[in-house]
Amino acid sequence: MKIRIPQYSDIVKAHKRIKPYVHNTHVLTSSGINSIIGSELYFKCENFQKVGAFKFRGATNAILSLRKEDLARGVATHSSGNHAAALALAARIQKVPAFIVMPENAPEVKKKAAKGYGANITFCEPTLEARESTLKKVILKTGATFIHPYDNYDVICGQGTATRELLEEVPDLEVVIAPVGGGGLLSGSAIVAKSLKPGIRVVAAEPQNADDAFRSFYERKLIPSVNPETIADGLLTSLSPLTFSIILEKVDDILTATEDSIIRAMKLIWERMKIIIEPSSALPLAILLQHREKISGKRIGIIISGGNVELTKMAYFFR
Amino acid sequence: MKIRIPQYSDIVKAHKRIKPYVHNTHVLTSSGINSIIGSELYFKCENFQKVGAFKFRGATNAILSLRKEDLARGVATHSSGNHAAALALAARIQKVPAFIVMPENAPEVKKKAAKGYGANITFCEPTLEARESTLKKVILKTGATFIHPYDNYDVICGQGTATRELLEEVPDLEVVIAPVGGGGLLSGSAIVAKSLKPGIRVVAAEPQNADDAFRSFYERKLIPSVNPETIADGLLTSLSPLTFSIILEKVDDILTATEDSIIRAMKLIWERMKIIIEPSSALPLAILLQHREKISGKRIGIIISGGNVELTKMAYFFR
Repeated sequence: MKIRIPQYSDIVKAHKRIKPYVHNTHVLTSSGINSIIGSELYFKCENFQKVGAFKFRGATNAILSLRKEDLARGVATHSSGNHAAALALAARIQKVPAFIVMPENAPEVKKKAAKGYGANITFCEPTLEARESTLKKVILKTGATFIHPYDNYDVICGQGTATRELLEEVPDLEVVIAPVGGGGLLSGSAIVAKSLKPGIRVVAAEPQNADDAFRSFYERKLIPSVNPETIADGLLTSLSPLTFSIILEKVDDILTATEDSIIRAMKLIWERMKIIIEPSSALPLAILLQHREKISGKRIGIIISGGNVELTKMAYFFR
Repeated sequence: MKIRIPQYSDIVKAHKRIKPYVHNTHVLTSSGINSIIGSELYFKCENFQKVGAFKFRGATNAILSLRKEDLARGVATHSSGNHAAALALAARIQKVPAFIVMPENAPEVKKKAAKGYGANITFCEPTLEARESTLKKVILKTGATFIHPYDNYDVICGQGTATRELLEEVPDLEVVIAPVGGGGLLSGSAIVAKSLKPGIRVVAAEPQNADDAFRSFYERKLIPSVNPETIADGLLTSLSPLTFSIILEKVDDILTATEDSIIRAMKLIWERMKIIIEPSSALPLAILLQHREKISGKRIGIIISGGNVELTKMAYFFR
């Protein structure tokens, strides 16, 4: 079966649809970091996005793309991360119910966030099986539409809008780097970048300790992630058939970074740029620190994916 | 003796002079914080300024305002804070030497910063007497010009440029709030705000535990700060004759905040806005949290003064 890949025109439509609801986030630069890396970096700060992550774009577009008869019954997902908060807030803004299945051991701050946005939360055992079976029950009962965090056409179109804004503001970028977990952000970014500038290089950044996308990309077959351990807790998921097929077609390279590089990059961004980013957002800078021989002297756009970190854990990184 | 107060036209000239060297920093908003406060807040993010603080504006203007024959011999100051780093970098950019006297117990991060910007550092005992006498010796030896952190005409003009940019971007502000320590930022901000919009309300925010400006303002005489203890370590200094006279003429009100309000405001800004600010920068939001009856339903501009905090200390605030 041929998979239908979103077109740039779909992302333009998504952008028009979600614009009244999302922030056109700032693009920041740091001359200190530029001189360390030897390139000119432009950071698209989706940590300033609503709910503190790019996920709000995809969730909003997915909800606004529902058929009217489905919309009223609401949306559902299982997640303990940014997608849950994003879907909850996007649903509240559109005045439809959101049903979130969360593992009972999810961090308190995430439970609080989803609840604060008015979601109906169902807790379950912390296994993928429990999450999926609980979600099925919830959907059967409510008739809500499942919005997958990344294996979803409309979600990918929404995520791509961040790179569209970045290229509108800094048109002469030569490289775009996005972190890759499930591949929603990367897919959307790659479609936009290659459509607007066919000669641009699209690079993905992945933790070495969760390198399923890297291996899938170079072995040309989808290899799932198995119990990865990395501080980049937004990048634990595996690619989906949809994101994998886009990545194979549109992405030029995937580079991985060690945990040390990720922590070093995160500290650099906090200290030099005075912004709070989550570990997953440090991946693009981490690969630049680690693979200077592969990318230097370029104008590089970087997507800062989010800023939701438990601040009490900062002590661990900065001791 | 009548003190000569900077005019708005001086600040316009300063702005033209320093523009090639300073960032026109972003203005951020937060709908979450707006709904907590019941006003529309516009945060001018000088934590994104070079050296991470507004002080770079004043230091740059002071250096660029020197006579040619003085310029070559360089500049000098005693400071363990942002002014030292700002003067060091501003001097390096203008290719003149900077001589900084620092107490030997200054935080490592501050010593490192000044050294990193190429300053000549002289350490001394951690007393004001030792700092002043050591600085005198350094100046006698080098012929450098002393640039006071705030009791300096050109420094005040430089600091005022942040509020000029803020009012250019958000012209319909009804209130401007700045933290007050020595009063350089507040003085410059007040001159600009009252010149551009005579009806605007200029409010200063000060820690209750270091309320010398508050008491000086209401008793109409300069009362120095005596061993204040507050986490807002940028606001420990006393007003000077120059800043006090400007504040008496241009500022409408000074409100104080407790340490609890300061910490609460700082956490709110970190968590909701995903930016790193130093405790002193939390003062404007802290007074809004604490004195809602005095200011609400307004369009308020807030100067975020800086972002230089030792991240290892975050654990203390977020435990």
